[in-house]
Amino acid sequence: MTGRPGITESGRTRPGDIGMPVGALLTPCLIVDLDVLERNIAYLARHAAERGVRLRPHAKTHKSPDIAMLQMAHGAVGVCCQKVSEAEAMVRGGVNNVLVSNQVVQPRMIDRLAALAREARVGVCVDDAGNVDALSAAASRAGSEIDVLVEIDVGAGRCGVQPGAQAVHLAQRVAGAPGLRFAGIQAYQGSAQHVREYARRKALIDAAIRETERTVQQLNEAGLAPGVITGSGTGTYDLEGAHTVFNELQCGSYVFMDADYQRIETEDHRPFDAFDNSLFLYTTVMSKTRAGRAVCDAGLKAHSVDSGLPAVHALPGVRYIQASDEHGVLEDPDDVLRLGDQLRLIPGHCDPTVNLHDWLVGIRNGHVECLWPVAARGAVF
Amino acid sequence: MTGRPGITESGRTRPGDIGMPVGALLTPCLIVDLDVLERNIAYLARHAAERGVRLRPHAKTHKSPDIAMLQMAHGAVGVCCQKVSEAEAMVRGGVNNVLVSNQVVQPRMIDRLAALAREARVGVCVDDAGNVDALSAAASRAGSEIDVLVEIDVGAGRCGVQPGAQAVHLAQRVAGAPGLRFAGIQAYQGSAQHVREYARRKALIDAAIRETERTVQQLNEAGLAPGVITGSGTGTYDLEGAHTVFNELQCGSYVFMDADYQRIETEDHRPFDAFDNSLFLYTTVMSKTRAGRAVCDAGLKAHSVDSGLPAVHALPGVRYIQASDEHGVLEDPDDVLRLGDQLRLIPGHCDPTVNLHDWLVGIRNGHVECLWPVAARGAVF
Repeated sequence: MTGRPGITESGRTRPGDIGMPVGALLTPCLIVDLDVLERNIAYLARHAAERGVRLRPHAKTHKSPDIAMLQMAHGAVGVCCQKVSEAEAMVRGGVNNVLVSNQVVQPRMIDRLAALAREARVGVCVDDAGNVDALSAAASRAGSEIDVLVEIDVGAGRCGVQPGAQAVHLAQRVAGAPGLRFAGIQAYQGSAQHVREYARRKALIDAAIRETERTVQQLNEAGLAPGVITGSGTGTYDLEGAHTVFNELQCGSYVFMDADYQRIETEDHRPFDAFDNSLFLYTTVMSKTRAGRAVCDAGLKAHSVDSGLPAVHALPGVRYIQASDEHGVLEDPDDVLRLGDQLRLIPGHCDPTVNLHDWLVGIRNGHVECLWPVAARGAVF
Repeated sequence: MTGRPGITESGRTRPGDIGMPVGALLTPCLIVDLDVLERNIAYLARHAAERGVRLRPHAKTHKSPDIAMLQMAHGAVGVCCQKVSEAEAMVRGGVNNVLVSNQVVQPRMIDRLAALAREARVGVCVDDAGNVDALSAAASRAGSEIDVLVEIDVGAGRCGVQPGAQAVHLAQRVAGAPGLRFAGIQAYQGSAQHVREYARRKALIDAAIRETERTVQQLNEAGLAPGVITGSGTGTYDLEGAHTVFNELQCGSYVFMDADYQRIETEDHRPFDAFDNSLFLYTTVMSKTRAGRAVCDAGLKAHSVDSGLPAVHALPGVRYIQASDEHGVLEDPDDVLRLGDQLRLIPGHCDPTVNLHDWLVGIRNGHVECLWPVAARGAVF
């Protein structure tokens, strides 16, 4: 089977090659409008610089060291990852500063985190004292030093200790642990990011900011001034960014955007338009046997529907109405679609959609400019 | 980064090694209870043999040549695939007979299909005359012969021509096309598979059977007796299987089962129990900071929620209530879970869940017996 065109050593098919017109790509594949991507990256970089906060974009969105390096070329101090294996892929790809913005509790992965900290500046979040001890022991064995952030739950109800005394107590444990450096706190309000009404979103972040300030004050009083105070996401980048308590932002989806993020509203009830869609799922009409309907080749294995079905780009009237494993049913009331036609879908949720693909195809002026491997695709450990 | 334990050449971490106790696996990972898997495979093989129908299980569920070969060792005549690249992975893994139970319309993939037909017996479905011509030209160029099935829409409203005259017309086109062999018809009622009430499910299949019979009769009258009449799925295996018009079944999910298939009912209103759950998403409690709740490490990148959230196996009272990208929130009313505990989830929908993982970990008697690569993971083309 070797030598067949477009199949790489690993057996994974490349959707196309550099220089090819977009219309010649194999589908379903993810295409990235490079002009828009660069605009999104530059916009948030400028926004952060103007407010004097550091930007550490979340690489869980793109899982691509190439995009991470582009973000760092625009001033990002490093990236966030959610998994140790994702962080390893970033370091392999040249990123020298990674925060695992999550808890790492399995012994083998703690050891890999400690080993990675010999190769790059590496941080991790904690919300448990026993986990602090395990990280410390692993760092000591590996001869490395790990930045540790205490995660506080500022309303998302997921991971993190309670703000205030609990956080101070855990920070003291970190500060006294060999091999660990108490680096600061993480205060990420994940459940606020996709709230549509601005006022409700702002109220959630205001509450998160109060809890964060209170915790910072108590840490300062305990002599444990947090160097890094990180949080925020694409939906609230302007809220934490505007407040002086945060000094690092970890937005991820802004590079690509998606149909769900497009549904949130700005303060004056306009559509959220700070960032544009740069990521599209390119798909082909594979069956057209009846009036009013068409079937495309992008189903549940090509995009994630957890936050709703994808939107159809630039084809008014055509709607994606049903996803099965390998098919998407399109409503095509005016029968504008023909067998073999290609169209762009805006994924409902970018992060888990990217995780389904091996490649991101960068396009400009209607042609393929680059092929970026989704290096951390499937990096679940 | 080479030489780190558990990282393979491709950079993909193996969740464990053969002989390891299950509790030592990295999570989130997919584990397969081999006793149950073998029972499921044997049960459907016996069912088909007793009714004198061939079984061609769908490999889109497991994407594993190892499981395909196990199914063939139990008498399956080959497998179905949905994509050419999936079929290539099966042939690379030793499967010599593959039906692509789907339309292939992109020129480059048609060429790859024709090339594959030199290495194995290969079939494909059609619902368009132009597509028949393109397949014929490709087979002629490749010097191969492709089995072609005319797909009829028997109620699913997705791909396929109308039963009856349209199907006969297309079959004639196939029969006259160089490089193609008219092999029969596909009549798959996909939208019936997950219907919960037996009576509604049966009514849909009864209608599909009538349309199939009518088409077969017209084909016979036209001198185009269809060799293969294929359809059915896990939810209706007993309905098409019991009827003489079908001579091939293409069930897929039966090997693993999932939470959604468990919700369908039998004729006497009992839970559907012909097959048991052999597939589990193994996950670790990664945060336990409050009463009544826990957070595990299996989120949207480890399982697909398109058909509902996963069920928690063998832990009454514990429920999986919310999925984010890398986290699952568990309701734990009696606080039975501790940090680091591992538990099994029954995925909501097996096929797109398997497609997220690089490995299937086969377990027996509490230990890892085999590690099967998900060879066609991401094979979307």
